[in-house]
Amino acid sequence: MDDDTICINVGGTIFTTKLSTLQKYPDTLLGSLSIKLDCYSKEDKSFYFDRNPELFNTILDYYRNGVLHLPHHLCGWLWKTELEFWKIPLTDISECCHKTLSSHNKRVDVSNMLKSVFSPLNQSEYASPSGIGKLRHRLWLFLDEPASSTWAKVFSFIYLSIVLLSSSLPCLITHPGIRIQTSNATTIFALAAHNNVHMWINKDNPKEMQLATTKEPDWLYYWSLVISIFFSVETILRLVICSTKNKFVKEWLNILDIILFVIMWICYGIKHGYEKKLLSNKHLAYFLCFCEAVSVLRLFRFFRLAKQYSSLRILFIAVQSSARELLLLLITFFVFGWMFANLIYYTEILESESFPNMLVGFWWSVVTMTTVGYGDVYPIGPLGRVVGVLCSLCGLLVLAMPIAIIAGNFDSLCRHNEEREAYAELQSKQTSNIPKAWETSKIDPNYPSKLLKNHT
Amino acid sequence: MDDDTICINVGGTIFTTKLSTLQKYPDTLLGSLSIKLDCYSKEDKSFYFDRNPELFNTILDYYRNGVLHLPHHLCGWLWKTELEFWKIPLTDISECCHKTLSSHNKRVDVSNMLKSVFSPLNQSEYASPSGIGKLRHRLWLFLDEPASSTWAKVFSFIYLSIVLLSSSLPCLITHPGIRIQTSNATTIFALAAHNNVHMWINKDNPKEMQLATTKEPDWLYYWSLVISIFFSVETILRLVICSTKNKFVKEWLNILDIILFVIMWICYGIKHGYEKKLLSNKHLAYFLCFCEAVSVLRLFRFFRLAKQYSSLRILFIAVQSSARELLLLLITFFVFGWMFANLIYYTEILESESFPNMLVGFWWSVVTMTTVGYGDVYPIGPLGRVVGVLCSLCGLLVLAMPIAIIAGNFDSLCRHNEEREAYAELQSKQTSNIPKAWETSKIDPNYPSKLLKNHT
Amino acid sequence: MDDDTICINVGGTIFTTKLSTLQKYPDTLLGSLSIKLDCYSKEDKSFYFDRNPELFNTILDYYRNGVLHLPHHLCGWLWKTELEFWKIPLTDISECCHKTLSSHNKRVDVSNMLKSVFSPLNQSEYASPSGIGKLRHRLWLFLDEPASSTWAKVFSFIYLSIVLLSSSLPCLITHPGIRIQTSNATTIFALAAHNNVHMWINKDNPKEMQLATTKEPDWLYYWSLVISIFFSVETILRLVICSTKNKFVKEWLNILDIILFVIMWICYGIKHGYEKKLLSNKHLAYFLCFCEAVSVLRLFRFFRLAKQYSSLRILFIAVQSSARELLLLLITFFVFGWMFANLIYYTEILESESFPNMLVGFWWSVVTMTTVGYGDVYPIGPLGRVVGVLCSLCGLLVLAMPIAIIAGNFDSLCRHNEEREAYAELQSKQTSNIPKAWETSKIDPNYPSKLLKNHT
Amino acid sequence: MDDDTICINVGGTIFTTKLSTLQKYPDTLLGSLSIKLDCYSKEDKSFYFDRNPELFNTILDYYRNGVLHLPHHLCGWLWKTELEFWKIPLTDISECCHKTLSSHNKRVDVSNMLKSVFSPLNQSEYASPSGIGKLRHRLWLFLDEPASSTWAKVFSFIYLSIVLLSSSLPCLITHPGIRIQTSNATTIFALAAHNNVHMWINKDNPKEMQLATTKEPDWLYYWSLVISIFFSVETILRLVICSTKNKFVKEWLNILDIILFVIMWICYGIKHGYEKKLLSNKHLAYFLCFCEAVSVLRLFRFFRLAKQYSSLRILFIAVQSSARELLLLLITFFVFGWMFANLIYYTEILESESFPNMLVGFWWSVVTMTTVGYGDVYPIGPLGRVVGVLCSLCGLLVLAMPIAIIAGNFDSLCRHNEEREAYAELQSKQTSNIPKAWETSKIDPNYPSKLLKNHT
Repeated sequence: MDDDTICINVGGTIFTTKLSTLQKYPDTLLGSLSIKLDCYSKEDKSFYFDRNPELFNTILDYYRNGVLHLPHHLCGWLWKTELEFWKIPLTDISECCHKTLSSHNKRVDVSNMLKSVFSPLNQSEYASPSGIGKLRHRLWLFLDEPASSTWAKVFSFIYLSIVLLSSSLPCLITHPGIRIQTSNATTIFALAAHNNVHMWINKDNPKEMQLATTKEPDWLYYWSLVISIFFSVETILRLVICSTKNKFVKEWLNILDIILFVIMWICYGIKHGYEKKLLSNKHLAYFLCFCEAVSVLRLFRFFRLAKQYSSLRILFIAVQSSARELLLLLITFFVFGWMFANLIYYTEILESESFPNMLVGFWWSVVTMTTVGYGDVYPIGPLGRVVGVLCSLCGLLVLAMPIAIIAGNFDSLCRHNEEREAYAELQSKQTSNIPKAWETSKIDPNYPSKLLKNHT
Repeated sequence: MDDDTICINVGGTIFTTKLSTLQKYPDTLLGSLSIKLDCYSKEDKSFYFDRNPELFNTILDYYRNGVLHLPHHLCGWLWKTELEFWKIPLTDISECCHKTLSSHNKRVDVSNMLKSVFSPLNQSEYASPSGIGKLRHRLWLFLDEPASSTWAKVFSFIYLSIVLLSSSLPCLITHPGIRIQTSNATTIFALAAHNNVHMWINKDNPKEMQLATTKEPDWLYYWSLVISIFFSVETILRLVICSTKNKFVKEWLNILDIILFVIMWICYGIKHGYEKKLLSNKHLAYFLCFCEAVSVLRLFRFFRLAKQYSSLRILFIAVQSSARELLLLLITFFVFGWMFANLIYYTEILESESFPNMLVGFWWSVVTMTTVGYGDVYPIGPLGRVVGVLCSLCGLLVLAMPIAIIAGNFDSLCRHNEEREAYAELQSKQTSNIPKAWETSKIDPNYPSKLLKNHT
Repeated sequence: MDDDTICINVGGTIFTTKLSTLQKYPDTLLGSLSIKLDCYSKEDKSFYFDRNPELFNTILDYYRNGVLHLPHHLCGWLWKTELEFWKIPLTDISECCHKTLSSHNKRVDVSNMLKSVFSPLNQSEYASPSGIGKLRHRLWLFLDEPASSTWAKVFSFIYLSIVLLSSSLPCLITHPGIRIQTSNATTIFALAAHNNVHMWINKDNPKEMQLATTKEPDWLYYWSLVISIFFSVETILRLVICSTKNKFVKEWLNILDIILFVIMWICYGIKHGYEKKLLSNKHLAYFLCFCEAVSVLRLFRFFRLAKQYSSLRILFIAVQSSARELLLLLITFFVFGWMFANLIYYTEILESESFPNMLVGFWWSVVTMTTVGYGDVYPIGPLGRVVGVLCSLCGLLVLAMPIAIIAGNFDSLCRHNEEREAYAELQSKQTSNIPKAWETSKIDPNYPSKLLKNHT
Repeated sequence: MDDDTICINVGGTIFTTKLSTLQKYPDTLLGSLSIKLDCYSKEDKSFYFDRNPELFNTILDYYRNGVLHLPHHLCGWLWKTELEFWKIPLTDISECCHKTLSSHNKRVDVSNMLKSVFSPLNQSEYASPSGIGKLRHRLWLFLDEPASSTWAKVFSFIYLSIVLLSSSLPCLITHPGIRIQTSNATTIFALAAHNNVHMWINKDNPKEMQLATTKEPDWLYYWSLVISIFFSVETILRLVICSTKNKFVKEWLNILDIILFVIMWICYGIKHGYEKKLLSNKHLAYFLCFCEAVSVLRLFRFFRLAKQYSSLRILFIAVQSSARELLLLLITFFVFGWMFANLIYYTEILESESFPNMLVGFWWSVVTMTTVGYGDVYPIGPLGRVVGVLCSLCGLLVLAMPIAIIAGNFDSLCRHNEEREAYAELQSKQTSNIPKAWETSKIDPNYPSKLLKNHT
């Protein structure tokens, strides 16, 4: 063996390489080896490092080849630690093998994100020692944690069924079979003429006439009132128990509750305070309609359920983390939709019955690209049909891609969450049932000191 | 080498590390090493363990780094065994590498589940020694195991074609080209008036009039009767051969058979016993309709085929194991559907021809979100069309995600099943054709004792 | 070291284990070790095997743990060879690690299948030494291998454009703008009445009237004739050059050619020989229609292109290899379709305008489940709409799964094919440009004998 | 140990094998070993190579087994280097393990492609030392690099909003609510008759009449003019600043700009110069329509955004790299579409109201296969409906496959890009914060010379 050869003992395994090879990177630990170091053993003429010999092969290959290629079967964390020990900069990892590290980082990020989402709320902030604090804490458990007690569970069931009810009632109110006739068209207009009031209602619109000549039955009215009061009380309670206002605002469901609270009582006020004025005041009627439409958001109260239902929450996270792709979907979709709207208008300009203007063309192109295809508008001429064929094919293409991405995100998040759950289960189960080493084997429990004494 | 250094011989490979490192975890085997142990060899001044040296690198790294990171290329079972040997608690595995273990556990679970589903039924419970037991067993083989004999195969073909026939006949019965005219509208109403019977039939509904004035042809009647008797006999036979009633109830196809059996004869009874009363008794007619509608379940008899057809069974398992995602799909779907129903009703309230009430709006939003798009209702006004665009995009999004999950489940189950089949094939094929070691090599068959004698 | 310990030198690395451990499996090579064997070295007191030490760890673990768990990062072939060497039966591989082996087998199967599909046809069977054989071979190259010569390429372009033409002509013939008026409705019926011939044509059907009163223009007739002759000559040539009739029959495109050849001339014969009779003989007209409909199969001639276009061929293979899933798709689809047909008929029985019979219901359920949704039939009543919602959701579910499988098959086949192409490219490129070892290094080319002399 | 045995020391680990095994491949480095070589050490009687011992196991297995199987967990680059060192031809890699290499090559290709797409434009070509060059460079930064300065950012926002405006204006112009009535139908025709001019406009087509009797409002006209001038100036600036004309042509967005520039002013010219002639000259009107239709391409200016928006660019690359599959999609789609067009025409030939000719049949089959299903044409007869069922199922199948591929390509490109970004971030961040080895450890900085002196 010539003088250039250097022996390194890594965790018991001997590696021999050339000194000149190591000195290629003088800033690293191996590049700056000196026999004056503590780790040099004169007997064996080798440097000793207490590291993993399996990983050291890759480290030496870095000096031999000049590039750092990491095996894919080991965790990124190990490599980070190892490279730090040997003082090799992370930037010398070759691009093709950087995946090992970056995928580890990503895993950890996703894992932390999921943990923070699913971690039980830090209860200490509610559990103040004072009596009011305790009450507050109990109320919070009752309202938000169905798992905490039987009453909380019962409450959560009642809550959900009331949400269900509150969502169906406004729907039923519009059904002609349920409404009660109070007057008829002639009476109303006669009355209006008599009172010299201008009626804004369109006689030919059955929906407007229905709203004007019928009213909701009494039982429905009382139900609505009960539900309104229930949600009002619940919202106020939530507002009360939440010690930190700041926190309350952060959760969008709470803000929604307040908005719904306000709108609910505005609707109630208009309906019962200004009932007569609705027929003569167009703007008031429109405002009531708008309020009723907004109060559909009460459906999102279903998502209070999500706290207990992890899949649903992951769905939301997936949509959130795909925001960029969703935007992409929308931009591309609208650019193509607009383009086909233009094309179809000009190709069908000689057909008198289709596509009166370009906005109708846009409606058609959206309906076609999403493959809904109502059939209220469709191209008639041969050129228009060619545009139609292109439009539907284009839609399939444009929509397939971002949806694939979002679905992929959802899938990977689901798998991550499964692993997180499996790990949490392991942690909670196995901490206790691993017997202490000195309980199951015949090893002397006083070994550390003894071993030190007797060894060598 | 200083005093702190400790040598460990693992399966022939020497590892050197520091004692202080090992003593970080005193509860583990390595942390409690003592030279008094049997495995300590004074000659070599090292501890000997008969373990895999490759895995030991990871074990030592646990002491060096304080965290347990498992290489991904080895089976979770190996790590479990290894960690148990070294008395390292499983909970010390770092979260990022826990996948190796949890994915192994999941694999084993899925594998066991598939095995239990596809395992041949334990035949011993049928095969009692007595004569009746034998007959029972034979009957069971004949009815349920087409692979058992040629007659069983023939029977299974006949069974399937009768199922096919029994599914198509009720369909054909409703076709006007097949029914035979017995009377006409005027005759019936004249007769009813003469007999002073109130006729509930709507004269303007061609379907009701058809049922009242025509009857099924005789050949169809006899066919139906033959099929009814065939299924009755088959159901009774199944009931008879099943020794344990409990087991019979567990299989939902058997319960279905009994339900269909009852309904079939009720229908038969009403049709032929109370034929005249049907025209005057509305409730009896409705009950008959209901029975006929339920008896469509006879189609599920096709899934008796599934016992032999593994893909179909995996489809069912995939749907079952995705139950949570399916529920998620339904909840999200209906929440959004309901929301768009509200929005479309209020945005289109001034259009007199579309969306008379909110239930129609819900029907529209479902038809749009599933991209079916019949075109019976659709928004007309500009705001309504904006809601329509949002609704169709939303539907694509909401549906894409859970479907991706279910498809993914199906795909992974299929692959698992493929592997299971490949493994089962290997097991059945190769047990015999591996020659005994002493047959193919020149090794003395008496080696064990000799070796012990001669060795060392 | 006690007597039980045994040393094994595998390729230079020493492994020590216990003899009792090895003797657990006496039928295997290691279980039947004897010091009388050639591989035992008395000096080192160890057995020497010239094998891979990395793999040996797994082999030893088999004796230690009793189960064979294979690392996933090594090829299945290596394990097969290794296990055969150590005489360990393949059946002792644990189920969880059998994937390494089975996936290797599957890879090889798919690879061989792809190779056989894409291998250039064995040309030797055409290339007989005789003159006719040569001519045949040349003709075959000309017709089937566009890459063989410039003329062949030109021919292939002409062929494809004629296929395109032959597919569009029958389409154009039906367009009223192209057909030439020969008579009008009154003339025809007057003539028929005069000749005392019964005319079967429906006066109210514009399509039938068009066929009766117009004829194709002359230029179209001549074009059709030219195309017919072209394909006839081509079919005959193919029949002639194919030395082995058996082979000819195997390729379905050839059978198609013959079928089209026959139908083409039957159509020609009827059109020009019995032109007058067509109007009076209903059956002849129907037969002509049937022939014209069948001759649409001429479109499949496009797939002669597939020989050069690998993606298309892989599409076919993917569909073939998913035949089981396709069948599954169809069965499940039709069972559900039929079920919803029943349900919708009975739930809508009181609506006089929808679903006159169950066959219409089936048409509706298929149109809904595939999300096509023409809107020609749709449920009207509330119960019918509930069935409609279920039907569309069900369709999305049933269709998503098998399509995912087929798409997955296609995807994996595409990737396999990419690898196959990369490998084939490597093989064709690199055979020559690797310099011989003795050309580029200063090693004495006579080394083998010398080395043997000088060594030791 | 017998004479045939040979010892090889690879990086410190000893491997022993048989000489005869190595000499199987005399052209390789190991096959041509001679004790005259420098690497032979007489003391140890072994050859020394400074290589990775882990990889050498695979190399030796090549000699033992005759085939080269590469472990999957190491990077393809390492194997390439290793095989080159040992002079083993790459072609001896077994097909099943070639994936390691080919997937590495593919990764590198994709990575380079992405880098070239996302690399910042080489600025040096703009930054000439002269004053005009500097101005040019600044202008280019201002127009194309929003990140370069605040003004550039503001400009980019203005640019995008003008693009948005320029896309919506032509749409609004067609809306009847915005246009201003200038004359009415009678006036126009009266005037035309008076001037003895032939009017080509169809009185019954409301769209044509609208264009003839109304004009765009003045404010819209001035807005359009401003936008036109803005884009003209911008296009001219781009043309000016681009030093190399060649480069300008390469970017399709620039070509688009010029085309739009020309068309925009042609439209302007026709509208304002020949306004009167439009009503009498049909061809001029058609030409104007065509120009307006083409100018929809202005929407693609949105994709200037893509330079900053990587997801969108990746979408384009994915579509590009799937060109072969897209073509496949189109061919298969049209072959099947054409086939079903034929079938539906002949099966519905007796129905007088559906499918007047085969082109309508093609339109129907496309609308069905994409599951759009307008419902303007649909089969009526039973046979036609069977064809319809087949067509919709076929469409689902044909479309599912290539879309899966494209979505897959997009997905994998996205992941590649994520990795690229992570790597770029690592490179930019970590170059500086890794401390020099001699700064943080107590190693003598003069080690190299000293070490050489003191060693051995």
